Formats: sequence, C-alpha cells, structure tokens
Amino acid sequence: MTTELYPRERLGRVREATEQAGLGAVLLTPGPDLRYVTGYDAKQLERLTCLVVPADGEAFLVVPRLELPAAHESPAGSLGVELVPWDETDDPYALVARRLPGGLASVGVADRMWAVMALRFRAALPGAEQVAAGGVLRELRMRKSAAEVAALREAGAAIDRVHRRVPDLLRAGRTEREVGRDIAEAIIDEGHEAVDFVIVGSGPNGANPHAELSDRVIRRGEPVVVDIGGTMPSGYCSDSTRNYCVGEPPADYAAYFAVLEEAQRASCEAVRPGVTPEAVDAAARDVIAAAGHGEHFFHRTGHGIGLESHEDPYIVAGNREPLEPGMAFSIEPGIYPGPHGARIEDIVVCTEDGYEPMNVTERGLAVVG
Amino acid sequence: MTTELYPRERLGRVREATEQAGLGAVLLTPGPDLRYVTGYDAKQLERLTCLVVPADGEAFLVVPRLELPAAHESPAGSLGVELVPWDETDDPYALVARRLPGGLASVGVADRMWAVMALRFRAALPGAEQVAAGGVLRELRMRKSAAEVAALREAGAAIDRVHRRVPDLLRAGRTEREVGRDIAEAIIDEGHEAVDFVIVGSGPNGANPHAELSDRVIRRGEPVVVDIGGTMPSGYCSDSTRNYCVGEPPADYAAYFAVLEEAQRASCEAVRPGVTPEAVDAAARDVIAAAGHGEHFFHRTGHGIGLESHEDPYIVAGNREPLEPGMAFSIEPGIYPGPHGARIEDIVVCTEDGYEPMNVTERGLAVVG
Repeated sequence: MTTELYPRERLGRVREATEQAGLGAVLLTPGPDLRYVTGYDAKQLERLTCLVVPADGEAFLVVPRLELPAAHESPAGSLGVELVPWDETDDPYALVARRLPGGLASVGVADRMWAVMALRFRAALPGAEQVAAGGVLRELRMRKSAAEVAALREAGAAIDRVHRRVPDLLRAGRTEREVGRDIAEAIIDEGHEAVDFVIVGSGPNGANPHAELSDRVIRRGEPVVVDIGGTMPSGYCSDSTRNYCVGEPPADYAAYFAVLEEAQRASCEAVRPGVTPEAVDAAARDVIAAAGHGEHFFHRTGHGIGLESHEDPYIVAGNREPLEPGMAFSIEPGIYPGPHGARIEDIVVCTEDGYEPMNVTERGLAVVG
Repeated sequence: MTTELYPRERLGRVREATEQAGLGAVLLTPGPDLRYVTGYDAKQLERLTCLVVPADGEAFLVVPRLELPAAHESPAGSLGVELVPWDETDDPYALVARRLPGGLASVGVADRMWAVMALRFRAALPGAEQVAAGGVLRELRMRKSAAEVAALREAGAAIDRVHRRVPDLLRAGRTEREVGRDIAEAIIDEGHEAVDFVIVGSGPNGANPHAELSDRVIRRGEPVVVDIGGTMPSGYCSDSTRNYCVGEPPADYAAYFAVLEEAQRASCEAVRPGVTPEAVDAAARDVIAAAGHGEHFFHRTGHGIGLESHEDPYIVAGNREPLEPGMAFSIEPGIYPGPHGARIEDIVVCTEDGYEPMNVTERGLAVVG
C-alpha cells in the first residue's frame, strides 16, 4: 500500500474508472478532483487549466502559458503527464478537442468546473454528451487511503487544538464577531492554510445551524455553538462543533443536551462497514425523536469530508449505499428548541469493525469564564 | 441615477435583458452574478441556492432551509423576491422546474455555476438549451454605475495604502514568503475582507508574471515585482502592481523599466470611449516592441475588474468591442527579459473623455532599505 498522499498510480486508476464508466475522457479543471488526481492545487481562473484523461490514450494537462512554471513545480510536473501550454490568443477548448480522438460519445466534466467552461467544451466537442465526472471520481475519493486518513487525523488534531483555546476567547461582553476573528486566527496558527468557516452562535443564534457571525454581544448564561473548520496544507479539511457557556446554562438546557450527547454517541456507534448512511442518520434521529425533540432536528446528520469540507457520502435519509472502511464523514446531530440550541460534531472514519474519531476533545458542555 | 451599490431596479433590468436575449429564464447560483443582481453574498455549497429570473414571470430565490435566515437577512431578503426554501430530502432542481413555465427552449446558467448543478438542471429541464448567462449579465456588469466606480475607488485607495507600507516590509535577507505574509495582513488591515493574491517576485521570480510565493531570500540589488489584490466588504476588488528594489537595481534595469513606464502611460492614455481594448493593448505593446522587447511581453495588457478580480472586458488582441464610460480594467504591461523583470499595473475606469486611475501611488521604481 502506498504511503503517499497523492500517489502517482492514481492517474491510472482514474483512467481505468473512466473506461469502465464508458466515458471517452474526463476533463478536470482546478478544484478537488484535479488535486486528488495530480496533487496540483491549481488556481481557478478564467484562463483554462484542464487535465484531460482519455479512456484510451495518454493524459495531458492543458495550462495557460503564464501558469506553466507553477504547473511544472507542482506535483503534476513530475507525474509524467505532458504539459500543453496555450497562449493568450489561442482557443484552449479547440486545443483539447484536436488532441482527443474524434467522435467521442461522452465525456465527464469535473463537478466543480465552471458552467461557462463546460459550455465551451460542449461547443468544442459537439457530439459528446457531458456527465458529471464525480460519478467516476467519487468511487475513488470516498474510500480514503491510509495516507488520507492520516491527513484527516492531522486536520482533526489541529481543529481540536483550536477548540481547546476557545475557553480563553469566550467572555461575556464580547461580540460573536470578535470571538470569531480570534478563532479564525487560531485556525491558521494551529496549522491550517485556510479558514473555511467559523460559526459562533450565541443564545438565539445557536438555534440557527448556519448562523453568520454577528455583532451580537454574548451574555452570561447563554449557550454558544462553535462550529469551525479549515483546510490544511495537505489539502484535507477539518470540521468540529462544540458547545460552550459563559457561566451556567439555562435550566432547560441540560435535559436536551443530554439527549444530544446520547444521540451523537449512538450515531457514531452505528458506524461500521455494511451499515447505510441512512441508518447512521436514523440512529441519532431516533434518540432525539424518542425524547420529543424530533421537530428540533431538521438537518441531515452529516457529510463526507476530505479535499472538500462537504463531499460524499452524505449521512442522510435516502442514502442506502453501504459504508466501507476508509469512508470519512461528520456525525453532527443538533437540537434547536429555541431560544438556544446545541450541536455536537465529530469527524469519524469507518474502520474494519467500527469507527475512528478524528476529534477527541470533550463532547460535553464547556462552562467557561 | 441611483446612488446604491446594489439597486433594487437591477433585477428588472436582468429580466428585460433575459427577454431580449430570447432566453426563457436565467438561473443564478452563488457567485458574482447573484451578488450583482441581489447584493446577496451567498456561500457556494453543495446544497442548491438559485435565483431564478424568468423572462415572463416573477423571480424567486430557491434556498436550502438551513440558509433561509441568511437569505432573509441579506439584501435579497428585501428585494420583494419570494424565498422558496427546500428541505434536506427534497429535489431542488425539480422544484425549480415545477415553478418555471413548461417547454422553455433555453435558459441561461451563471457562468460560475458548478457543472454538476448545470447538469442537474439539464436533467430537470430536458428541453431547455443551456447558454452562459454571462452573455446577458456582462452587458450590465461591464458598465459600472457611479456607485460601483466609487467602490472601485475605495478598493484602489486601500491597496494603494498597502503599497505604501511595502518599503517597510521589504528587507534583504527576508524571504518572499515572509514579506508576502506581512503584505497579506496589511491587505486585511487596510480594509479588505479577503486577500485574493499576493505576488512577491524577487530577482528571477520577477520574470515569471504569476510567480508563487517562495522561500527564496531577497537579496540587495534585486528588483522585486509586487502584484497584490483583495476583495472589499462591498464585494469589489483591488489589484495593483509596483516595483521595488532593496538598494540600487542592476545596470540593465533602468533602460527597460523606462520603456515599461512609457508603455503603461501610453496604454492608459489610449483609453477613451470608442477605442477598442485591442488598441489599448497595442498602445503598450507597440512601445515595448519598438524598444526591442516585444518577445519579453507575452501576456495581455489587462482584464476587467469589479465583483471579480478578472472579468470583462479583457484588454487583449482580438477584442474589438469599443470601450464605454464606466468600463473598469487593469493596464498592466510587463517586460521580462530575465534574470529579472518588471510590471506596472493600475486599475482605470473609462470616463466620458478619457480615464480615471483608481491607483495613484508613484509608478516609478521604489528603491528601499
């Protein structure tokens, strides 16, 4: 088994998967798919960069001449893939079409390709039906290698260190935005390359799972939901939610928080190969519904994570594709009865016989200040 | 004339433009087009958020229920547009299709929509040919309002303040990365919301127009190209390039830098209504070629700027669409003879009879330290 995060043989596996899917080629513009296949963290620009992987032929990477030095220096430069530069007044879509075999019936386009680029490819390859390349790549990307799990573990440890600093940042009288800025700095300090999101939901804002940072002043006795994540230099993402309170929480909080802790644990413990994401979702949902809070948990239980902070598999009703070892996702039930709420989130990886948590900080309410 | 940055009447103009373009509707997912039309700076997520503007009917905004509070609080919440939430197990593409008139022949999709979403819309609206909505929106977005020009002026002043701080940050013995990190902090300090790019191209890296920050140590006597930009809270972008040297530059530098200064000035002075971008490009290129450096200037002269740091109009050979008042773009010729290089970049706005520069710091080489 390779120990590399971006192993060279991945390109060959993508070519095989392209052939097996019956596609003539996949076209990967900058984004998580391109990075997964080549390690190249290319910038998404109006000038086309595109890895072309024909089912039958050699892959090549089309790059604007201005990006040629960056492409050469990137891991893609040592993959043995031909770099094909284009000049400012060239048509790079026509260039791709000329190099592909004629008459392709179908091509896969990167899920995150800009639509304007997909439409240019449609015009340049008029006979080729476009399908989402994610259908090919997700089968590979969903099953994390040992090196990817190590990268997620490293990301989890980094965000755990940030959560350990939150008690020093949360004080009655500070605004969510002030606390959020400090947390964003800590996310970078603790080893992330980018801040992906910072939610500091105090009091009523804690009952909104996707609250934006606001100028609301945090007051003593208000529960605060802190949901934070970033991207590491490896490209892999972190995401963890913990609950804090400056002083003692309201009287009605302890009862539903205890239900939430039980639900989150039950959901984690449901994880093992062969179980469906739908069942993992139900494990949390059933506990919460049995306690009379069903209507206060109105989002899915989790999402996959890797090079994207949200990717397959989604832990949601209707997803019956059985879990396999290496699948990585969040388990994050919430209860939002108002005028406050709570959510507990860990990233877990499905193992041969259960799960491994990537986040290990205490899951209980942290009373601070 | 409105003084608002995101005026309410813009939605009506988009509807009219949609009708005039012969499209049944435009579909705008999070990104610069959605923000332009509604002011809503929505996050790009795997859950569909989409403003639907039918040519014949009322616009509506489809949002995941989790994003409903954010959408309500955003400027889109007070536009009088119906917000249509969808739940975790709904199909939002089918929801859009059900609310649109049947049998639409064509729809515009946001240029930056993810391909996977455009493909889902294709399946949900099987008879509708997809075209890039940019074709509709660019006509509006290219001609900046007075409020947009004011926002660009504010962005230009902010990046100018950063350039004024660069002499304090550049020292022989520091690495590009160290200097770049300090510049990134200054970009935020001076009022930007996000850092878009930081190029610190020292010595030979200055001959690579898109050099990445490296661990190269900057040495005395090496010219350094500093090309930086960010996005302001308004949504509008800055972008400016200046040239620095710790101590005196190499003997051969002054001659080509003088050519570059003349070329950049000539290109700016070519800007006025009715002139083509191609001619503005040629104004710089001709000066550089006449001095024998034609082969050392191998990129276009500029790009439009606004809610995107690169957008229409592009200042490039082949673009013959005449300039109009309100068009905003960079003028950034470069000369890269190696083993060093230089580029001078200002954002300018085409006025009734010429141009207004958004950047006003000295264009000459700044000898520092």
